[in-house]
Amino acid sequence: MIKVGIVGGTGYTGVELLRLLAQHPEARVEVITSRSEEGVKVADMYPNLRGHYDGLAFSVPDAKRLGACDVVFFATPHGVAHALAGELLATGTRVIDLSADFRLQDADEWAKWYGQPHGAPELLPEAVYGLPEVNREAIKSARLIAVPGCYPTATQLGLIPLLEAGLADTSRLIADCKSGVSGAGRGAKVGSLFCEAGESMMAYSVKGHRHLPEISQGLRRAAKGDVGLTFVPHLTPMIRGIHATLYAHVADRSVDLQKLFEERYANEPFVDVMPAGSHPETRSVRGANVCRIAVHRPQGGDLVVVLSVIDNLVKGASGQAIQNMNILFGLDERMGLSNVALLP
Amino acid sequence: MIKVGIVGGTGYTGVELLRLLAQHPEARVEVITSRSEEGVKVADMYPNLRGHYDGLAFSVPDAKRLGACDVVFFATPHGVAHALAGELLATGTRVIDLSADFRLQDADEWAKWYGQPHGAPELLPEAVYGLPEVNREAIKSARLIAVPGCYPTATQLGLIPLLEAGLADTSRLIADCKSGVSGAGRGAKVGSLFCEAGESMMAYSVKGHRHLPEISQGLRRAAKGDVGLTFVPHLTPMIRGIHATLYAHVADRSVDLQKLFEERYANEPFVDVMPAGSHPETRSVRGANVCRIAVHRPQGGDLVVVLSVIDNLVKGASGQAIQNMNILFGLDERMGLSNVALLP
Amino acid sequence: MIKVGIVGGTGYTGVELLRLLAQHPEARVEVITSRSEEGVKVADMYPNLRGHYDGLAFSVPDAKRLGACDVVFFATPHGVAHALAGELLATGTRVIDLSADFRLQDADEWAKWYGQPHGAPELLPEAVYGLPEVNREAIKSARLIAVPGCYPTATQLGLIPLLEAGLADTSRLIADCKSGVSGAGRGAKVGSLFCEAGESMMAYSVKGHRHLPEISQGLRRAAKGDVGLTFVPHLTPMIRGIHATLYAHVADRSVDLQKLFEERYANEPFVDVMPAGSHPETRSVRGANVCRIAVHRPQGGDLVVVLSVIDNLVKGASGQAIQNMNILFGLDERMGLSNVALLP
Amino acid sequence: MIKVGIVGGTGYTGVELLRLLAQHPEARVEVITSRSEEGVKVADMYPNLRGHYDGLAFSVPDAKRLGACDVVFFATPHGVAHALAGELLATGTRVIDLSADFRLQDADEWAKWYGQPHGAPELLPEAVYGLPEVNREAIKSARLIAVPGCYPTATQLGLIPLLEAGLADTSRLIADCKSGVSGAGRGAKVGSLFCEAGESMMAYSVKGHRHLPEISQGLRRAAKGDVGLTFVPHLTPMIRGIHATLYAHVADRSVDLQKLFEERYANEPFVDVMPAGSHPETRSVRGANVCRIAVHRPQGGDLVVVLSVIDNLVKGASGQAIQNMNILFGLDERMGLSNVALLP
Repeated sequence: MIKVGIVGGTGYTGVELLRLLAQHPEARVEVITSRSEEGVKVADMYPNLRGHYDGLAFSVPDAKRLGACDVVFFATPHGVAHALAGELLATGTRVIDLSADFRLQDADEWAKWYGQPHGAPELLPEAVYGLPEVNREAIKSARLIAVPGCYPTATQLGLIPLLEAGLADTSRLIADCKSGVSGAGRGAKVGSLFCEAGESMMAYSVKGHRHLPEISQGLRRAAKGDVGLTFVPHLTPMIRGIHATLYAHVADRSVDLQKLFEERYANEPFVDVMPAGSHPETRSVRGANVCRIAVHRPQGGDLVVVLSVIDNLVKGASGQAIQNMNILFGLDERMGLSNVALLP
Repeated sequence: MIKVGIVGGTGYTGVELLRLLAQHPEARVEVITSRSEEGVKVADMYPNLRGHYDGLAFSVPDAKRLGACDVVFFATPHGVAHALAGELLATGTRVIDLSADFRLQDADEWAKWYGQPHGAPELLPEAVYGLPEVNREAIKSARLIAVPGCYPTATQLGLIPLLEAGLADTSRLIADCKSGVSGAGRGAKVGSLFCEAGESMMAYSVKGHRHLPEISQGLRRAAKGDVGLTFVPHLTPMIRGIHATLYAHVADRSVDLQKLFEERYANEPFVDVMPAGSHPETRSVRGANVCRIAVHRPQGGDLVVVLSVIDNLVKGASGQAIQNMNILFGLDERMGLSNVALLP
Repeated sequence: MIKVGIVGGTGYTGVELLRLLAQHPEARVEVITSRSEEGVKVADMYPNLRGHYDGLAFSVPDAKRLGACDVVFFATPHGVAHALAGELLATGTRVIDLSADFRLQDADEWAKWYGQPHGAPELLPEAVYGLPEVNREAIKSARLIAVPGCYPTATQLGLIPLLEAGLADTSRLIADCKSGVSGAGRGAKVGSLFCEAGESMMAYSVKGHRHLPEISQGLRRAAKGDVGLTFVPHLTPMIRGIHATLYAHVADRSVDLQKLFEERYANEPFVDVMPAGSHPETRSVRGANVCRIAVHRPQGGDLVVVLSVIDNLVKGASGQAIQNMNILFGLDERMGLSNVALLP
Repeated sequence: MIKVGIVGGTGYTGVELLRLLAQHPEARVEVITSRSEEGVKVADMYPNLRGHYDGLAFSVPDAKRLGACDVVFFATPHGVAHALAGELLATGTRVIDLSADFRLQDADEWAKWYGQPHGAPELLPEAVYGLPEVNREAIKSARLIAVPGCYPTATQLGLIPLLEAGLADTSRLIADCKSGVSGAGRGAKVGSLFCEAGESMMAYSVKGHRHLPEISQGLRRAAKGDVGLTFVPHLTPMIRGIHATLYAHVADRSVDLQKLFEERYANEPFVDVMPAGSHPETRSVRGANVCRIAVHRPQGGDLVVVLSVIDNLVKGASGQAIQNMNILFGLDERMGLSNVALLP
């Protein structure tokens, strides 16, 4: 039984870790921390957990108790994992960080986008970017895993078949992404209010969103070269879900894109290439650790449109984190992650 | 392994049976019928099922194939089970009917509320009303189970502790119930459109709703006498969930209502009596087979207010149906039903 | 042209006043105050106002500038109007207070429910409760008007025909009310987040809500005697709207309730008694200053069910405030308030 | 007073025409037709209209009664206006068609996209495309106006400043558009149900949507040459609103795009170019006849991103139709269209 610690468990990725781990036969949550909610039972804060974690309460972060865990998930705002990860690694505990702290390989770029110096650049060389469909082998032996962001997961999984195959014009990629409001977290912000985000749609951060460098880094790896990406995120009036609509120029009209995608993901348990002509709905992955993809070439032209959907809290965060844990500990990658999406 | 058949699987209770049974270790769906969708794979109609039922397709109802199953669920409009249940029972197949066909013990009352003669009155004496919290023993040996409706489940579970204890004035009970739109089914009706049911709230069927006689029948059983019930259902702009707000006069102010409810449901795996002062949210049971209840006596007066929430498609339909199946086949009642509610 | 000032215009009742006053031919907003947003143009904060108030910006409250207005609306949290109203009245400015500050006639009761001493008890004798359907004559000559709350408006308009006629058992009235989330205001509270309030329904403040004494006060006036009221508010996943479902025992079954309601409101421009058997939807009043009411006697029994819907921000706040202003200044009561509700 | 007829008034564009015309000082609805709802009062079908059109009922289409009107709006499925428009024009009645019947100048292209022969090709030469920002002069003297579709309005208004100025690479334009569900009409379709379209996002018709040729036709006119457009519509869980996210390559980085857009629309009453850096929300135009636009050049690159939002039922349909009527009859173009958008 894997002993699990969670740092910063009061947000949506925290409760989602708890929901999923409750069904995991080989993991047990031993510690969950929160400074503000010390002593509060998790089931009092999140009543959906009643009957599942009745003894578990939030405690203040304590390196010793966390260090006694086999693995610690960070479900924290950026910056927190920088401070604690090294100490935990030193005790032999594996770290799976759901925040952005170790996603960018370049500490300077991190500092630029996050507006503060990187707090643990010495750990970057060993941090593994936890996108199993790309890095499965490296994950197996990792000590420190950076779980990809939600937009980056949907976008990379949608584009890398084209990039790895060298088919797309990499200078002009577009990711028009739509996110549910839970992507903004559980913080009490006016913009996330029901009456502000409901019954409306808007783009945001068109000037530059923090996920842009992360996506670009991943696409460069796949393309083995520079990429030019325009990324426009949108806030959508739904709780969960990301719909990435991806545009790439593929001059060679003879290539069988459906086959390309199906072959690329043939052995991936959590990527579903849908039949030609499909339009994946975000609800088809609600609560499930799946990315569903469809590829189109409208009017037979040069521009290829890839539709890629995930649940931002599952394959875009907590589910993917557990998938990484499974790989890390040599378990069946699907363990605890086989539930069917909730539809309707 | 229990061989399962489903009649009429294209609606929301059908897909919900499939979602839940995919996680059930002792049951396997062998047949699912639909006249209109013959030959269509269930995963093509409901993409959330992709990867779980890839071989299963809808077939036309066939008594022989259904009769080869250990149990057949009816997820059909009223009237259909009347026609088929007898034939299946004759082959030794158990029948669990999610429709209203066998819920009312009185065939004449059924005919009055459903506007057509009862099609199988000879089966009524052996039909067991499948509310395990009341009828568990009878369910164990039943051949034909009538799964309670969604409003009736939430309302009965909320009121029966008061009625069984003889505390409430049974002549003036009120059930003010709010339902998500999935309660209206997947039929293409104008009133269920996103643009009609969204961003609005309304009462309906105040004159008399078909669940009224079913609820009254159950309350009479608990009260061992006549009851006067006013039932007002409301359509609420959410997909899943029922919130029953129940009003009963309890003149004896000395009774410890919290204790009464906790004791009544102490051994019930799927009824959660919340701490005193709680306000259960429907989302705390989304996708889960749970009824959460809180009991209040505002301003210490005579009027007791009980708040009772369920997911209408789970504890109000398909989850409760599987709970009945588990009891019927001597399995752990919780088997396949232990998933955590999806929040947020 | 009436010179209008608005104190505390950054919340939802503030922007709603601006929306409605933009269409009012006899009123012009001269001043709008906000300490936190000083200097910000209203159209920068609320882009729906672009093109309508391009010169208007928030300023810090200034008694002199406000005192130069003919009327000042308070769209503030409770307590603020206590401090400023007297000073403005002294300059001859009329005050229309949308907050709870002057709604309760009894300063002690106010202190009990609002947890602080009443700040201007000397003004209570002249404060007029601004429910035109009850107090039109008093409003005409008032200097200080307390605009009713949203729940109290829907509930009183639904019950007073029964109470004024002496038909209902006043000892056991029930108001089961459902409110859209905008009733909770624009404050950044976790409970009002899209991901908390969306796709869910819950009761709240069952123990006792601040609108309870206000409603009771109004019902006592109508009943000319004591009343026993149970009031249960619910949070509903929609932006605007209140649906009050009201229960009253009316033993005399011979009375023509439809006629009673129609006659009571025959001359009321903003109360619409719908045909017998109707179920008013909240969307039928979205954005409009209307209360729609239907009255039912289910199964011909003793219990009468009244359905009463308003838009909480219009007839439940800003629209009613302008209706009061129209009466106060001798204008056509409907001026600026004749827009059609937005449906769908 | 302009005598108005409406053909096919039971859908959302029909009720929206009624809502807006109720506030129009120079127009009065004399006839509204519906075969299925003959004799039903409009206020019985749409209770938001109660008190505004109490005498008006649906009647079967009658050329004589319609021909007595000064103008007839068609709010019908495609094909209906083909059959009736000619007859009405012969009587001197102006026709404003909200359907697609006269939007495409090429009858063969219409036939290809709509799957049936064009029913009135002889009227095409005089049909004027009713986008006032492009065609105001032609509208003034038109007899037959084709009101633009919702996607085409948002997309054209967002792109034509770039195209008219010859700045964009016209071979690779992209319109990634998100629509509220009301764009699918009031027909009882499964895909438009609350439980199907709610809490989910999906693309549709990626292969080719009927609005593609209409948009392309308009863009060709602006660009004075061929254009290559990829148009991907998405269904968004909100009732009203279109958000068009438009991508165009503009190699000349020296051009002041903000100024270009502001100047292009300086005299347009219903196009609002927002300040640089803005992200327009669809709710900022809910219920109002406005298109709000923001223009971005992310990271200073070649790709320009234009954000353009409208209410699909107002500036995308009924509001624009009335704007056309105002121009046609020499009225102030803003008459009856000055209401503020409903926010929140």
